[in-house]
Amino acid sequence: MQVDVRTASRRLSSPARSNDAEMDHPETQIVERRTELVFPHETNQYGTLFGGRALAMMDVVASIAAMRASRKPVVTASIDRTDFKAPIRVGELVETIARVVRIGRTSITVDVELWAEHPVEGNRRLSTVGRFVMVAVGPDGRPTPVRDEPSPP
Amino acid sequence: MQVDVRTASRRLSSPARSNDAEMDHPETQIVERRTELVFPHETNQYGTLFGGRALAMMDVVASIAAMRASRKPVVTASIDRTDFKAPIRVGELVETIARVVRIGRTSITVDVELWAEHPVEGNRRLSTVGRFVMVAVGPDGRPTPVRDEPSPP
Amino acid sequence: MQVDVRTASRRLSSPARSNDAEMDHPETQIVERRTELVFPHETNQYGTLFGGRALAMMDVVASIAAMRASRKPVVTASIDRTDFKAPIRVGELVETIARVVRIGRTSITVDVELWAEHPVEGNRRLSTVGRFVMVAVGPDGRPTPVRDEPSPP
Amino acid sequence: MQVDVRTASRRLSSPARSNDAEMDHPETQIVERRTELVFPHETNQYGTLFGGRALAMMDVVASIAAMRASRKPVVTASIDRTDFKAPIRVGELVETIARVVRIGRTSITVDVELWAEHPVEGNRRLSTVGRFVMVAVGPDGRPTPVRDEPSPP
Amino acid sequence: MQVDVRTASRRLSSPARSNDAEMDHPETQIVERRTELVFPHETNQYGTLFGGRALAMMDVVASIAAMRASRKPVVTASIDRTDFKAPIRVGELVETIARVVRIGRTSITVDVELWAEHPVEGNRRLSTVGRFVMVAVGPDGRPTPVRDEPSPP
Amino acid sequence: MQVDVRTASRRLSSPARSNDAEMDHPETQIVERRTELVFPHETNQYGTLFGGRALAMMDVVASIAAMRASRKPVVTASIDRTDFKAPIRVGELVETIARVVRIGRTSITVDVELWAEHPVEGNRRLSTVGRFVMVAVGPDGRPTPVRDEPSPP
Repeated sequence: MQVDVRTASRRLSSPARSNDAEMDHPETQIVERRTELVFPHETNQYGTLFGGRALAMMDVVASIAAMRASRKPVVTASIDRTDFKAPIRVGELVETIARVVRIGRTSITVDVELWAEHPVEGNRRLSTVGRFVMVAVGPDGRPTPVRDEPSPP
Repeated sequence: MQVDVRTASRRLSSPARSNDAEMDHPETQIVERRTELVFPHETNQYGTLFGGRALAMMDVVASIAAMRASRKPVVTASIDRTDFKAPIRVGELVETIARVVRIGRTSITVDVELWAEHPVEGNRRLSTVGRFVMVAVGPDGRPTPVRDEPSPP
Repeated sequence: MQVDVRTASRRLSSPARSNDAEMDHPETQIVERRTELVFPHETNQYGTLFGGRALAMMDVVASIAAMRASRKPVVTASIDRTDFKAPIRVGELVETIARVVRIGRTSITVDVELWAEHPVEGNRRLSTVGRFVMVAVGPDGRPTPVRDEPSPP
Repeated sequence: MQVDVRTASRRLSSPARSNDAEMDHPETQIVERRTELVFPHETNQYGTLFGGRALAMMDVVASIAAMRASRKPVVTASIDRTDFKAPIRVGELVETIARVVRIGRTSITVDVELWAEHPVEGNRRLSTVGRFVMVAVGPDGRPTPVRDEPSPP
Repeated sequence: MQVDVRTASRRLSSPARSNDAEMDHPETQIVERRTELVFPHETNQYGTLFGGRALAMMDVVASIAAMRASRKPVVTASIDRTDFKAPIRVGELVETIARVVRIGRTSITVDVELWAEHPVEGNRRLSTVGRFVMVAVGPDGRPTPVRDEPSPP
Repeated sequence: MQVDVRTASRRLSSPARSNDAEMDHPETQIVERRTELVFPHETNQYGTLFGGRALAMMDVVASIAAMRASRKPVVTASIDRTDFKAPIRVGELVETIARVVRIGRTSITVDVELWAEHPVEGNRRLSTVGRFVMVAVGPDGRPTPVRDEPSPP
């Protein structure tokens, strides 16, 4: 699957996602991007990025997005089923794009896309998508509200 | 959730799983185990193992199990939804147990459990489970049969 | 030094920089951003990010920006004097922002800022800035033109 | 640029440097050397050591030299402009030589050379030089005198 | 040296070892196994696993075995002479098998085998064996009894 | 055991070692030194450097010394029994000193000392010593003479 860069960014700002009722402040929507080079020690002996390593990259970027959305420590509560559509190879660029799509009482849902990009040709292909649910935690490691709640009168 | 070690291993060899019709050679069932120490650089700033890092550990052990089951190069095709029931902390032991549960024409399905174990107390808790589908690939990176197929007459 | 996020991004898109005569396509200006968590193994025994590690982060992001600007392999030719205004500590977020400011015949100049951000408070401080000159290289490792040049008639 | 090993060491002990008036104890001059192998994960996809990685190697050795000169925790305050004269490749040896050239009230200045060496041929070339200013810090992270100062009478 | 997998496991459970008089609870004999892939950054520039890296793998697995046998923090006290019979190469599987052979008052002796396995062919060869003596340590870092000792009457 | 730095270096250049009959060129005696900081991910959960990690540090420095002595690719053939006299802790400096003590037809013997040094106090203690036998190898991975041998007339 080959798409161009503009298609990718359009997808992220598509109107279909903007009417999420629980999104508190759509105008300050959190989107984290990170591009990395794929190194030999992140690939199996056939030069292909490990699926688990790809998820680890996605999880770190999702964590940063959730921390910035909540300004609380977060832990990963669940990761939805992910399919790896196309292998990513040594020497390619990998761009991870994480977008906060829902902020609940104690959880932050983050959709993450992983794109492979040929460094010289410049063409890109969507390798995988994943939905991560992060939970804000307090000093005791237990779930804590994302937003400070009014004390009872 | 606290279980003892024998419960864990009994679960892996439970008869409920042994009548999987597509399992070619149940007598040579592939089970991979690996125990690791959790280091600071694998945890977030609150001393908790990253969810993505946990999945990366599971993926490597699943890959080794699938390679040994197929004696072919493999890539990860999909990872089922995973829930992280309990955080794992710096200094704990983590045991990953991968078990090949199905061998299809080009795919190998591996169930993986991730256990946290207190190094001194010895008690264990199941942190997460995941189902990984790996695909055997040929020199061209495309799916290839796990078993050598008879050539047409 | 405490600045807010908007000041930071305004700085990057300041008009003072936009009249760089050699910038070929200002409308497709390349800006790379990457946020990372600071881990214990990247800091000295006092919990402070190594200066050289900070430069290594900046260099990788500058390399990616230069590769995307040129679609050529690049190597670092020089790094300007850098001052570290404020130490960055374990557990903080570090955002690297690289901006291509000049494309010469064989070189790409990239200005990079490194920001420390408190994950919970959210305040940011500019830790350092640097100017990196990257050079596009051909298969023989020698400088090669960034843009394909017309062959002589 | 090809030089032999003796030229390199002569350069380090050249008389031109020995009349630095602020060098407190020239007889205990601190020189740190470290040789490393260049591994694939330290190079870009073209097998060339990252410029930032080279500076990170230099910074660690400079830090050790400054710590030994001051017996105080140190942080990097500034790194002078560095030019990378020749790329270093996977499989080569890299020797970093750090020499304390000035000890001020709270700062230690360290000149660092980075040499590439062919492991089999043995020839060496100077890849880059850099000047690092390190600052001794107290428990509060603020600059502290390198030498213990007499208390006022 | 080529052996098959069954030979390897038979060796570990050989009767010759079972009459070790000091082995307290043979029925709960501790055997740790771990399989790893050999990555480029663990090998020298000729694609061969570093001898020291092999010992580091063996030491970690021996530590885990000793911790599980004693449920105490352990440190390595000595490693017997080891010979590397055959180099292990990038892309191979390495299986480390650690077996607790003796539990003394404060020490735990662990025999470790390191096997190389071709991932596709499946044949295995014993690369090296080593004997590690681990010591249980208390909060002060000094040797402490493995078993809780009865207090004097 | 506390010794001062001069004792350590005197030991390395002791006359007792200089009459090794097989040492071809004593005047170009190869001594490699490397100082490293101990980071959390190199220690167990009690802050003590892994014994195997210590041996890995020693092996790399021994390899570099042997490569420089032979200008041939080398592999580790054996490591003598090593005792760890005193644990090394996070934040300490570790200095590895490797000295080529014998050059045989295809082998190079390297004695290695590992010193722990308190970064602020400056006192040092010898943590362990080891003898490494390295073998020069040819393109086929088999032992090859260290010195080029005269062809038969």
